[in-house]
Amino acid sequence: MERRSFLKKAAVGASVGAVAAPALAQTQPTINWRLASSFPKSLDTLYGTAEVFSKRVAQLTGGKFNIRVFAGGEIVPPLQVVDAVQNGTVEVGHTAPYYYFGKDATFAFDCAVPFGMNSRQQTAWFDQGGGRDLMREFYKDYGIINFLGGNTGAQMGGWFRKEIKTLNDIKGLKMRISAFAGKVMQPLGLVPQQLAGADIYPALEKGALDAVEWTTPYDDEKLGFYKVAPYYYAPGWWEAGAQLSFYVGMKEWEKLPKEYQYAIEAASFEAHVTMQAEYDAKNPAALARLIKNGAKLRFFSKEIMEASYKAAVTTMDEEASKNAKFKKVYDHYKRFQRDQNQWFSVAELQMQSFMSSRK
Amino acid sequence: MERRSFLKKAAVGASVGAVAAPALAQTQPTINWRLASSFPKSLDTLYGTAEVFSKRVAQLTGGKFNIRVFAGGEIVPPLQVVDAVQNGTVEVGHTAPYYYFGKDATFAFDCAVPFGMNSRQQTAWFDQGGGRDLMREFYKDYGIINFLGGNTGAQMGGWFRKEIKTLNDIKGLKMRISAFAGKVMQPLGLVPQQLAGADIYPALEKGALDAVEWTTPYDDEKLGFYKVAPYYYAPGWWEAGAQLSFYVGMKEWEKLPKEYQYAIEAASFEAHVTMQAEYDAKNPAALARLIKNGAKLRFFSKEIMEASYKAAVTTMDEEASKNAKFKKVYDHYKRFQRDQNQWFSVAELQMQSFMSSRK
Repeated sequence: MERRSFLKKAAVGASVGAVAAPALAQTQPTINWRLASSFPKSLDTLYGTAEVFSKRVAQLTGGKFNIRVFAGGEIVPPLQVVDAVQNGTVEVGHTAPYYYFGKDATFAFDCAVPFGMNSRQQTAWFDQGGGRDLMREFYKDYGIINFLGGNTGAQMGGWFRKEIKTLNDIKGLKMRISAFAGKVMQPLGLVPQQLAGADIYPALEKGALDAVEWTTPYDDEKLGFYKVAPYYYAPGWWEAGAQLSFYVGMKEWEKLPKEYQYAIEAASFEAHVTMQAEYDAKNPAALARLIKNGAKLRFFSKEIMEASYKAAVTTMDEEASKNAKFKKVYDHYKRFQRDQNQWFSVAELQMQSFMSSRK
Repeated sequence: MERRSFLKKAAVGASVGAVAAPALAQTQPTINWRLASSFPKSLDTLYGTAEVFSKRVAQLTGGKFNIRVFAGGEIVPPLQVVDAVQNGTVEVGHTAPYYYFGKDATFAFDCAVPFGMNSRQQTAWFDQGGGRDLMREFYKDYGIINFLGGNTGAQMGGWFRKEIKTLNDIKGLKMRISAFAGKVMQPLGLVPQQLAGADIYPALEKGALDAVEWTTPYDDEKLGFYKVAPYYYAPGWWEAGAQLSFYVGMKEWEKLPKEYQYAIEAASFEAHVTMQAEYDAKNPAALARLIKNGAKLRFFSKEIMEASYKAAVTTMDEEASKNAKFKKVYDHYKRFQRDQNQWFSVAELQMQSFMSSRK
């Protein structure tokens, strides 16, 4: 509905633009921006999405608007992209918003919350359900305007040295797990660990760490965890559809010519499509190779899923009771998600269940 | 992999563009195109996607490249969009490729085939799995170059006057159903009917027609079939993720400045995202209203699903045995789909099944 009335206004805008255009085109400035990615080049699906974005922006502006992409750590530490955009170190960042959970848990709604929406639902909420407006209001305090930047799809639950069958198996388990999920699982006895990337493998090998979760088979395969922690669990209920964002500094955004703003908007949609498509295209073969090489695929038991779900709802409700920003987005997100799951239970789930039962 | 090496080449291209740009920008021509949609304005999600596309192309080109959108039937009959682009009546069309199943069943792979891929899988196949190249080779014979143009997601199985429980209930059933599904179901005794839109409701009311399938709740609600055929079945296995396309006349495409081609490419990705997001955002409330107004939600029985699947495979195999173009795409699509379903059975299906079991 909103979109329709917006389109009418836009049609008027387009005709005005048509008259003004030739003058505009001649006076477009050359602009060079720097983009800080949270991801290393080795995670090519994540890192590469910023290149898809930057390449298209350049193409759409006759090469006059150049955004140079820097991998995580090159000019900004991977988990400080939001700060770098906020304080103007870079004009744009590409990151997973839930990395900033420690600043404010509200960031997570723009990425993934425990037992949250899947990839398509998250896009629908953001693009057509009011999520974009809610998150933009939140990001104002950081001087940031945000754009869609890809999705991984539902992730795996990670690598475990031993099988995890009951809640008892979780007690005392030392796991490298994302912050929000760690907070949810602590009351169930899990001991969340913070380890730098390079330390994970040796810790797992020695048994100083019992489990680690990363992303999906295509990325997981590169890290080789299957050699020391072969039980590969699904689903990663804390990342049912982890969405990435492009963060643009609001001051820089406002200085851009309209046409360059349009280029960023359009390129962000393209990057959003290609990341999910690339993960979907690459994950099946990666999973097959992992299994061939000794990974043992397992599903979390009903007991563990139910207890985790209950713990997640408690944690989210508690956060909402003490964080008004979180509560505002949570209430909206929760209603949208409930409706989505009712609809997805019908045609989508019936169809996928049937297709999954084929040989 | 392909994308990576493409990016390297593109980066070189971008620097060249940067040098040439100012001259280019000044000499960009004003171009006016006409787009024929297959859809009436009343189907606002389908029709509106072409407006999203056209609006963005204008914005990205300073209003110099204008694509005027015409609703189905305004200048071209809804089901003759491919012909109109092929013979140059319009420069661009927005349509559901399987409408041209009668010309060549191969069109359907660019949209939906019985028991085909879901929305995300179809996008992955097209954008990252080789589908785009295969379809572009096919479209060469029609003088067309194609671009992503949205997806409806898994559709419903349609409206039935009586409950359909066994294969016996299908024998003699007169149903308005899409061409490919009709062909599949004929050996099971279904009698496919071709009826113009306006004739469907009275035929259902009188009992001259027993069932009709359309799209998803948001569109289905407008047509009011629930009043005369209240049993609303899922899933629509012949449209597990129906993808739409923008068709551009190859001759016109080749005449465009590079920058305008980039604008079309980028705008098509945006249109692709927004259509699926809009259907996802609107369908839950529409389904709830339909049920409140008397629609009775039903799932096709295992017996019917299994028999339909078997019939679909037979029909597809038969087509492949006599149509080399179909066979070429089918072999590729089939392998990709098998791999997709193995992966989607893990994290995605486990997660969706759990979330669907919540109250």
